[in-house]
Amino acid sequence: MGTIAFIGLGIMGSPMAVNLAQAGHTVTGWNRSPGRTQPLEAAGGRAAGSIAEAVRDADVIITMLPASPQVEQCVLGDGGVFAHARKGALYIDMSSITPRTSVELAEAGAAKGIRVLDAPVSGGEAGAIEGVLSIMVGGEPADFEEARPVFEAVGRTMVLCGPHGSGQTVKAANQLIVAVNLEAVAEALVFLEKSGVETTAALEVLAGGLAGSTVLDRKKDSMLARDFRPGFRVDLHHKDMAVVMDTAREIGAVLPLGAIAAQLIAAAAARGDGDLDHSALLRGVEMLSGTAKD
Amino acid sequence: MGTIAFIGLGIMGSPMAVNLAQAGHTVTGWNRSPGRTQPLEAAGGRAAGSIAEAVRDADVIITMLPASPQVEQCVLGDGGVFAHARKGALYIDMSSITPRTSVELAEAGAAKGIRVLDAPVSGGEAGAIEGVLSIMVGGEPADFEEARPVFEAVGRTMVLCGPHGSGQTVKAANQLIVAVNLEAVAEALVFLEKSGVETTAALEVLAGGLAGSTVLDRKKDSMLARDFRPGFRVDLHHKDMAVVMDTAREIGAVLPLGAIAAQLIAAAAARGDGDLDHSALLRGVEMLSGTAKD
Repeated sequence: MGTIAFIGLGIMGSPMAVNLAQAGHTVTGWNRSPGRTQPLEAAGGRAAGSIAEAVRDADVIITMLPASPQVEQCVLGDGGVFAHARKGALYIDMSSITPRTSVELAEAGAAKGIRVLDAPVSGGEAGAIEGVLSIMVGGEPADFEEARPVFEAVGRTMVLCGPHGSGQTVKAANQLIVAVNLEAVAEALVFLEKSGVETTAALEVLAGGLAGSTVLDRKKDSMLARDFRPGFRVDLHHKDMAVVMDTAREIGAVLPLGAIAAQLIAAAAARGDGDLDHSALLRGVEMLSGTAKD
Repeated sequence: MGTIAFIGLGIMGSPMAVNLAQAGHTVTGWNRSPGRTQPLEAAGGRAAGSIAEAVRDADVIITMLPASPQVEQCVLGDGGVFAHARKGALYIDMSSITPRTSVELAEAGAAKGIRVLDAPVSGGEAGAIEGVLSIMVGGEPADFEEARPVFEAVGRTMVLCGPHGSGQTVKAANQLIVAVNLEAVAEALVFLEKSGVETTAALEVLAGGLAGSTVLDRKKDSMLARDFRPGFRVDLHHKDMAVVMDTAREIGAVLPLGAIAAQLIAAAAARGDGDLDHSALLRGVEMLSGTAKD
């Protein structure tokens, strides 16, 4: 498949780049802050001294960055991906950013003869390490097929969801549903506890019926134990809910529960719970209901 | 197990009484409006001319009625269950009512030497016909064990959730989570559609990740097709959300998403969608977002 440039070797990007190298791809990595390239080099990859050096000869360029501003800077800026990538390259942004930015990147790429896919992931750090991410993709079907060997090295499920930006839209919908379902479990748990019900038995019945959800399955034990070690941090979900609500405003989708859930996550971040798992929404319901312990 | 009196042979009660008779129990049924006893009689049961006649010799008395007022009238009123049941009888209310009423019934029963369980169900008409209901029970462990053969004739899962009222509390928590999870799917679907995403592929990805839920699994196809035949009617969920929010007020549980979901279900009832499936919450999001077809 030729050579891959990987930009952004953070918590998610580093294990993804490692998995690509271990799958036999030729991977050159770059990260803004230094000292992040050792795992990739240990897996047989190379470290580049600049974005220009990383992307100049690459057939595929991947970015995995925190949010839209970082992606725009690394890709559109002077010394960025589009200034140095060769014509005909395939650029895959796997960051979670606003769908609108993904569309703008695709247009800017097309003007330079560079094909673009948006391909955000879900599955978290554990999924990145194990190479079992879910990948939601927007762009052209032929480019999706060309990218498949890359996706197969880092993920288990990969679905083309529509034109440019569609991957980001589906990722945003994912974060919308997860936020609402988490808050539903948090509210139900406080409701049950204040009623004097045996919550372990109750949550088991609920999980087996129409109230069942992946959130309930995965989080009920840790929520009962008030174990809020991440997992997925409140601050990241807070960032993602900004994508959800900004996009909803742009497209004219009105999301009553999404809006409240976004505010409740904002409250968690504001009260200093940003580094806790997003199931710490439970602490907010406890505070509102007068049962918070601290 | 002796004889069973079954009060309330409606959409749920009739097939439950039939299943009890077919399991070998001696069942005497009564219904306020006439013409509802034929299925029970065809299954080998008997029809009584009054509550007094039905319950006089019964070891177990079951009510399956629409809401708290009907239960209070049939049980506490003149000519009701407690006026005519024999001392030592076991009274099981399988209606979905407020937990507070269940506690009051248990106290009134105790004063008459009658043991009481609250045992609301989930699983709907189909679950009642097939005898696979989930049964959430509140009351004394010994009474729960004594009722087990009855529950096994009508249900598949039966869990003692705590003291009197706990079954109703867990049922209310179930309806709270289901309402919120349904609205989450509805909002996500409108968000995806207005973004131009391929919704069938998108919902499949979402169902396989942390956004997955029983609601999403069971309802995504019918919601995509705008097929709102019930299922579980909006009007019934509207009634159940009153139980949720009244109980939350009594116990001091604050439910921000539950409260909005209750209002959105109220809106569905108010606009005349009461006889549709509760997934018709989707129509509300479409109206808010300007994409409603009618």
